[in-house]
Amino acid sequence: MAKKKKADKDDKLKAKVKKLRTKAKALKAELAAVAPAKIKSKTVAVSPLAPKSFPDLPQIGGVEFASAAAGVRYAGRTDVMLARVAPGSAIAGVFTTSSTRAACVLDCQAKLAMRVPQDAGAAIIVNSGNANAFTGQAGQSAVDAVTGAVAEALDMPASRVFSSSTGVIGEPLPYEKIVEAVTGLKDSLSPAGIEDAARAIMTTDTYPKGAMAEIEGDGGTIRIAGIAKGSGMIAPNMATMLVYLFTDARISADRLQKMLSRQVDDTFNAITVDSDTSTSDALIVAATGQSKAAEISDLRSAEAKAFEAALRSVMMDLAHQVVRDGEGATKFVEIRVTRAASKEDAHRVAMSIANSPLVKTAIAGEDANWGRVVAAVGKSGAQADRDKLKISFGDMVLAEKGWRAPDYSEEAASAYMKGEELVIAVDLGLGRASKSVWTCDLTHGYIDINADYRS
Amino acid sequence: MAKKKKADKDDKLKAKVKKLRTKAKALKAELAAVAPAKIKSKTVAVSPLAPKSFPDLPQIGGVEFASAAAGVRYAGRTDVMLARVAPGSAIAGVFTTSSTRAACVLDCQAKLAMRVPQDAGAAIIVNSGNANAFTGQAGQSAVDAVTGAVAEALDMPASRVFSSSTGVIGEPLPYEKIVEAVTGLKDSLSPAGIEDAARAIMTTDTYPKGAMAEIEGDGGTIRIAGIAKGSGMIAPNMATMLVYLFTDARISADRLQKMLSRQVDDTFNAITVDSDTSTSDALIVAATGQSKAAEISDLRSAEAKAFEAALRSVMMDLAHQVVRDGEGATKFVEIRVTRAASKEDAHRVAMSIANSPLVKTAIAGEDANWGRVVAAVGKSGAQADRDKLKISFGDMVLAEKGWRAPDYSEEAASAYMKGEELVIAVDLGLGRASKSVWTCDLTHGYIDINADYRS
Repeated sequence: MAKKKKADKDDKLKAKVKKLRTKAKALKAELAAVAPAKIKSKTVAVSPLAPKSFPDLPQIGGVEFASAAAGVRYAGRTDVMLARVAPGSAIAGVFTTSSTRAACVLDCQAKLAMRVPQDAGAAIIVNSGNANAFTGQAGQSAVDAVTGAVAEALDMPASRVFSSSTGVIGEPLPYEKIVEAVTGLKDSLSPAGIEDAARAIMTTDTYPKGAMAEIEGDGGTIRIAGIAKGSGMIAPNMATMLVYLFTDARISADRLQKMLSRQVDDTFNAITVDSDTSTSDALIVAATGQSKAAEISDLRSAEAKAFEAALRSVMMDLAHQVVRDGEGATKFVEIRVTRAASKEDAHRVAMSIANSPLVKTAIAGEDANWGRVVAAVGKSGAQADRDKLKISFGDMVLAEKGWRAPDYSEEAASAYMKGEELVIAVDLGLGRASKSVWTCDLTHGYIDINADYRS
Repeated sequence: MAKKKKADKDDKLKAKVKKLRTKAKALKAELAAVAPAKIKSKTVAVSPLAPKSFPDLPQIGGVEFASAAAGVRYAGRTDVMLARVAPGSAIAGVFTTSSTRAACVLDCQAKLAMRVPQDAGAAIIVNSGNANAFTGQAGQSAVDAVTGAVAEALDMPASRVFSSSTGVIGEPLPYEKIVEAVTGLKDSLSPAGIEDAARAIMTTDTYPKGAMAEIEGDGGTIRIAGIAKGSGMIAPNMATMLVYLFTDARISADRLQKMLSRQVDDTFNAITVDSDTSTSDALIVAATGQSKAAEISDLRSAEAKAFEAALRSVMMDLAHQVVRDGEGATKFVEIRVTRAASKEDAHRVAMSIANSPLVKTAIAGEDANWGRVVAAVGKSGAQADRDKLKISFGDMVLAEKGWRAPDYSEEAASAYMKGEELVIAVDLGLGRASKSVWTCDLTHGYIDINADYRS
């Protein structure tokens, strides 16, 4: 009897264990279902849309990099990068148009406007962990301290030292930490340090971003290498996130600036992660002129056009990499608007769709909910005619002539949505203007990152 | 020995049970932490910000309601409501400005423009489950069938039958189901049916929305009762979600329209859940003239002003209820902008903050991240001066004179964020214009609802 009792008790306990195991399994499954991003963020650090590896970037004659762990905010990682470019380099840049832009952005803009002669060298110093934005007079003092220290160490005028800061807004920048790191940075400058530099400027980025291009100029090769950081607060407005491009092309600052300004609209200004424009966006390009190719002195020449196309391709590559690292992103989406009445309208419609939380959550849920695309077109304020509108997902026409397409297949549309790279195309049927913008989906991962992380 | 072994085995099993229980508890806690809204949505159906109960609405002389389960899309609930207003009623309305607005919206606008004499009665028929938007010519045919059936049943011209549809976009409206329900609706019309009507028009709403006001007119009481639906795709643009207001006031359609148009900007146009403007927004008000109070014939009279104030209070109440039922909302937030250079600027800054995903996720995470408010002011395009800006959460000044306020306390700010109702105030320090808008936070609940639900 006692034995029987024991056995019963055993069985009961075993049953309990089994029941609890099932329960734990169910809870785990539920957890995975409701917050897949949360689980991923613990086991997979890198965006699923990331390139396989950091590209093999060419060294650019006259450019050296260094990075260091100054302890601005993060522990156990680098957070400052320094780039030195040789005397004779042309510098150009575009910046955020935010009315609350950071002290370092205002400083860069002022310095570029000074048009300091190119015979001085130049430097770029960037820290992550603190944006030095909305930090009042102390913000400018911090910029002066940091750029002054670099100027002294590298023996160049402070007016040729450009700085960027990225991270939390409104907290004083612990600039002494950066100043202290300058000597060490100077001592470790190397033409091969660009990948480490790309890592040092990351904030919520899950991978470092690099891109390159090479073209044959008149008499030699011209190389372009660039790095970028950006993941959230991405909706550049006539500017960018943090991007640094280096080339050995021989070109004047004016011509470089012209090319840059003209290519930014279709590249960095054509991406959005969350419609939030940063206070710190900056894109700086340095051309050292150390290529053997002849100077680019006529913007209409074949060489100039080839160089501008190469520059554009590097900018586009980096812009797409920023979207692919969008906070919580699991899908990379092109919104392609054609036959709009004007270029402005094409841009408005594309951005209205790309920024619509309902479109972005539908994409996250792999739901071919083209009705939400219709609503986003409707709210954009752009000229649109319901009966001329055509909406396609990939090659599939889903809606036209004011209604669902005759051969619409919910099944085929749903299957398409399972892909990692999607194209949502809207043909407005009104004019000749077109515009593509790139965005990502809106997932639990975005909420996880931004409801907890103070950036 | 055997006994000892048994006991050991028992202990082991007991330990296993204990371990698994702890694990299950931890998993449950993790589940609750990462997806509180998901858990809530299973156990608590109603928004935590909902009013305690549906208000006690006065019956309005000359107005009757009926509702029915026509099976448009949802099972086991009502989805059609009919309101009949007596002959002699004035009707006014405002509608979405979306360029892809629904067939029923276009139909209402056309009918209101016809200025049919008030001696005919009028009716409003609304279905949930299908928006009849982007449904081409079939959309208008469906509206004609539904409003025609109501006109015949109630013996009034079809030009006095106004319809709304809300739900999925781009699918054909199964109008026969609604037509079939009309006779039953007619037979169950009752002056007391307003709460059931409010329930019948819900989609992702978690509670029915009603509001009322009573004022003493010249010679008698004037009553206003209204109902609304709305939870997602809420960013009205010179219009609203679905709102129906009824009053026994004696007032002409023109005067009623004037009051309505003038009050909509500060009420329904001042709310946003997700920046997405609907294709179906409609606000219709009917005034039956059955109050004993004298006619409101001079808009500058004290009576007219009192009535307009009462109308506004009902509109504001319903607008706030829509935000309180915002998809996934856990916080009700007023964004209060003062001393802007112009009214447009005040509106732009307020909406830029209210629609910022980064501000909304910070609120969800109870993070007093005022830096994101700074960024949202900066991106708005409105005139702003960093050094004149003052940002307060509740009564606490967090930032002023271009920097963190001198007595800023992270602890106090964080404590404030734990409240359910928050005020984020931005004083631009430039002019005299001000604007308040109301919004909610952006949570996992929003993603849950919209990555799965096709609306």
